[in-house]
Amino acid sequence: MTGVVVGVDIGGTKVLAGVVDADGAITSTALRTTPGRRVVTSQVEDALAEAVLEAAAGRPLLAVGVAAAGFVDSAGERVQFAPHLPWQGEPLRDLLEARLGCPVALDNDANCAARAEAHHGAARGASSALMITMGTGIGGAVLLDGQVLRGANGMAGEFGHMQVVPDGRPCECGGSGCWEQYSSGNALVRTARALMAEEPSVLQEMCEDNPERVTGPMVTAAAEEGDLVARRAFASVGDWLGVGTANLIAALDPELVVIGGGVSAAGDRLLDPARTALRRSLVGAAHRVVPDLVAGRLGPRSGMVGAALLAAQARR
Amino acid sequence: MTGVVVGVDIGGTKVLAGVVDADGAITSTALRTTPGRRVVTSQVEDALAEAVLEAAAGRPLLAVGVAAAGFVDSAGERVQFAPHLPWQGEPLRDLLEARLGCPVALDNDANCAARAEAHHGAARGASSALMITMGTGIGGAVLLDGQVLRGANGMAGEFGHMQVVPDGRPCECGGSGCWEQYSSGNALVRTARALMAEEPSVLQEMCEDNPERVTGPMVTAAAEEGDLVARRAFASVGDWLGVGTANLIAALDPELVVIGGGVSAAGDRLLDPARTALRRSLVGAAHRVVPDLVAGRLGPRSGMVGAALLAAQARR
Repeated sequence: MTGVVVGVDIGGTKVLAGVVDADGAITSTALRTTPGRRVVTSQVEDALAEAVLEAAAGRPLLAVGVAAAGFVDSAGERVQFAPHLPWQGEPLRDLLEARLGCPVALDNDANCAARAEAHHGAARGASSALMITMGTGIGGAVLLDGQVLRGANGMAGEFGHMQVVPDGRPCECGGSGCWEQYSSGNALVRTARALMAEEPSVLQEMCEDNPERVTGPMVTAAAEEGDLVARRAFASVGDWLGVGTANLIAALDPELVVIGGGVSAAGDRLLDPARTALRRSLVGAAHRVVPDLVAGRLGPRSGMVGAALLAAQARR
Repeated sequence: MTGVVVGVDIGGTKVLAGVVDADGAITSTALRTTPGRRVVTSQVEDALAEAVLEAAAGRPLLAVGVAAAGFVDSAGERVQFAPHLPWQGEPLRDLLEARLGCPVALDNDANCAARAEAHHGAARGASSALMITMGTGIGGAVLLDGQVLRGANGMAGEFGHMQVVPDGRPCECGGSGCWEQYSSGNALVRTARALMAEEPSVLQEMCEDNPERVTGPMVTAAAEEGDLVARRAFASVGDWLGVGTANLIAALDPELVVIGGGVSAAGDRLLDPARTALRRSLVGAAHRVVPDLVAGRLGPRSGMVGAALLAAQARR
């Protein structure tokens, strides 16, 4: 029986595994709930292994790639720290190799998403690109000649914690004024809640008059319906996306910027205000090539596809 | 007679040329005044050629490298724009090759300084490093495996125009809140002037009661004498240096950060507050390796040395 390469994306809420072929096509998937952060690590590894085996459906495993929402060391052996996962430096790659009986590759989820977009998506053929993933927070990766820049300690691409406002909004990282406090899924929801307090919105009905229940997808749906509060929340988050992206472009001058993550499903509603802010904020915008700001093509499966790609490369 | 490789650093006020040997040692130099911005470009090229020929002192030119304070295209052929030089996209490299009769290489001055520090200075042996040059403004470069990251359009490293304060101080670039408005030679002088208005300082005497005459070297000298106004100006500029550096480290995770440019002559008076701010601002500082922040070793000649290095490489 022909063997398969499986990619896994593991975040704070779910584990998504899939068989990915050499062209980046997904032939089968399996989903599990992440057991949470306050469990023994082996429970998370159980869920991960179950999802992998279900996706493989009895076919031999050639290699497994894991995209984790956390800090992965530069050797790709451990998750050093993850806000929503229990791992704290255990030799995860070796543990999974022993459990699954095949080579395992491990990287940060945004790095995996970037790798997938470079090989099969929006950044294909670009000499350099930035990947900015807008989920709960902001993740990111720097692509040079199709390769992810890992950094000296595997921590490159933490764009979300660049400070954009001195003494600004407090951040879960312990800092304040971090970019992701102004431009992310959480920021979208927070902005919408604040605006709802000032004027009527269909969000009021959607959340059954409890603003704490507002979610990102609700804001997206409300904006689609023409709700002004939701549209203004997107305009704000999009504007900050452009401002922070201008900073990264000033430093790195990439050919292209790819926006991924859940919030990017809103497409031009997010990207149009970002493009406007980018042109306003980028140094010398009138005298230079301003990189395109585009949505990722692989959507929420980019991390899984990129993890499979990494695994396939690692086994060569 | 043995031929020589000459490096030239051309800024808004002076042209410094020097013969640089393969070990980065400078064997002779020549200095000219930059004719200014409002002259025909050939006058600047005259001054440049004169300085080169004086430094060479009759020896044949093997190659000449030019470090220019401006935006250089990715092919290294033109200065696209420079705030203090008249060039605006002329084919400068070809013009100089025709005039000097030898191969000419051209790059941005901070890129050249980074190259020099990578080969002969503080960044030698580092797998990755950031170079931050604090002069009138902030210049910069990203070093990966000893090579300068040029960017898709040759414009990588414009760290000084990353926005650190929304609606902040207006910048010469047309933007506002740019990092170099808070951390640079100009920022040092501006901060000292503002503090002088509030309390006594030896700067008052140094500038003959005319704050407009305060210069960066005056502030450095006053700080050496123990002047509190001058020391607080350094503390402010150093703090902002650390904040902005933390942003770059979050994005790029380099092994090392090298601070060059005129302001870096103040050494730990600048770097100590920067290191403190870096540890305070950098995401996950308690759980990661925080890169060293060190002064460049080649001082004000780094641009010239790096230009010669580029020329020597180009002729191979």
